[in-house]
Amino acid sequence: MVNILVCNDDGIFAPGIHALVEAVKGFGKITVVAPDKPQSGMGHAISVGKPLWVKKYKEFGPDIAAWQTSGTPVDCIKMATGELMDVRPDLIVSGINHGSNSSISVFYSGTMSAAVEGVLEGIPSIGFSLLDYSLEADFSAAKVVVREVVQMALTHQLPPAVALNVNIPALPLAELKGIKVTRQSAGRWVEEFDKRKDPYGNDYYWLVGAFHLQDDGQDTDEWALRNSYVSVCPVEIDATAHHALPLLNQWDLNKAKLN
Amino acid sequence: MVNILVCNDDGIFAPGIHALVEAVKGFGKITVVAPDKPQSGMGHAISVGKPLWVKKYKEFGPDIAAWQTSGTPVDCIKMATGELMDVRPDLIVSGINHGSNSSISVFYSGTMSAAVEGVLEGIPSIGFSLLDYSLEADFSAAKVVVREVVQMALTHQLPPAVALNVNIPALPLAELKGIKVTRQSAGRWVEEFDKRKDPYGNDYYWLVGAFHLQDDGQDTDEWALRNSYVSVCPVEIDATAHHALPLLNQWDLNKAKLN
Repeated sequence: MVNILVCNDDGIFAPGIHALVEAVKGFGKITVVAPDKPQSGMGHAISVGKPLWVKKYKEFGPDIAAWQTSGTPVDCIKMATGELMDVRPDLIVSGINHGSNSSISVFYSGTMSAAVEGVLEGIPSIGFSLLDYSLEADFSAAKVVVREVVQMALTHQLPPAVALNVNIPALPLAELKGIKVTRQSAGRWVEEFDKRKDPYGNDYYWLVGAFHLQDDGQDTDEWALRNSYVSVCPVEIDATAHHALPLLNQWDLNKAKLN
Repeated sequence: MVNILVCNDDGIFAPGIHALVEAVKGFGKITVVAPDKPQSGMGHAISVGKPLWVKKYKEFGPDIAAWQTSGTPVDCIKMATGELMDVRPDLIVSGINHGSNSSISVFYSGTMSAAVEGVLEGIPSIGFSLLDYSLEADFSAAKVVVREVVQMALTHQLPPAVALNVNIPALPLAELKGIKVTRQSAGRWVEEFDKRKDPYGNDYYWLVGAFHLQDDGQDTDEWALRNSYVSVCPVEIDATAHHALPLLNQWDLNKAKLN
């Protein structure tokens, strides 16, 4: 029996996680541990110095053990594997996120950070995101994609120490051209701030950034998505910039006189 | 004139950021933008759907423009570069963190996420951490290390798209053996939870994890630190697991029948 842990960052009430649970039914025994409120943009945050509240959640029916927690997506993975589950999950799926997590959004995404946390704990993990922020998004094509990718992951096994970042165009199934293995596009968020004054005279700011793509490679996630393909990008948990090691060694840091 | 932006995750009142400002005085014009409260473990979190409050902070004296914000470390970098600073910083330094950010802690660390955010914005960035969680930590040796590494970074220029993760043993200067360029150690946090009941009968949990090192490489950050060396580890902003691409392409995802 395959044990599957389901998490997300939009919260346990979001339609996306209910679509994901529907999609993975039939692959094994499902456990859900997810935040009790939206936690978008929480990245790899954990709750330091404050405790976590946990409550049973019944809406997935009697066959699915589910909990909501007061923590972040990464907290949810830690609570699931360290406390709530009797068995170690064989696979973690996170999402389906309401909105894209392509390119550098992987750093900000709670959905992908939950998957990366799974891999840091040695568990094969996949994050799924649909390119539609709406709460009324249509997840029917995304569910087909989830089943296809999960089937492949269970058949072939994920490479060790690698999470998958799966992004799905917001298109009807008939308009999806297929699935591409991709690399992360280079790009940048250019930030603008909408400055206001609160009723007490204090300045406050709304962040209104725009994404600037800086990469036209046809092997990238952005190219795939903009051309109606599902993107499957492997994500690394060794953050070392190995290519930079020879250059840094030329700095002669090791000859620095500290004392 | 070199423009240096200083940030941290322990908050603008923490001794570590005051030590860092002291250390980089003399290298250029300093601007500080930092959280108004501790933000440890916030990873790459940003404030989504809520505004940021910003206030001037005078304690660094008349020559240093400084602001505290209600946001995360990454929010602080975005506010600094997108709104508060008139010029683009030439260098971002983050820290000095109270506590280690070696091995996989780079994922959870607000200090390092501020540096990674800088690099995502194309700005050379370095995070500094002292292996002492105490608020009374002695930063005198760490300040010497900061000056040495910043001098090297300004002389040689950082490799593009790479942040530096600098960890410093909690030792007197005379006991530091030198500086080593390292790679991120493989390791894992094994989580335990201290379960309690609140006065209203609800379960809550304190996270009490322990780090398990799974790597005895003498080229790692943990080896350096445990042997009295400062560790300088380059950190990547392309999260793609490039080595996994050929293997994933063998899955024939591109032949999956979606419709």
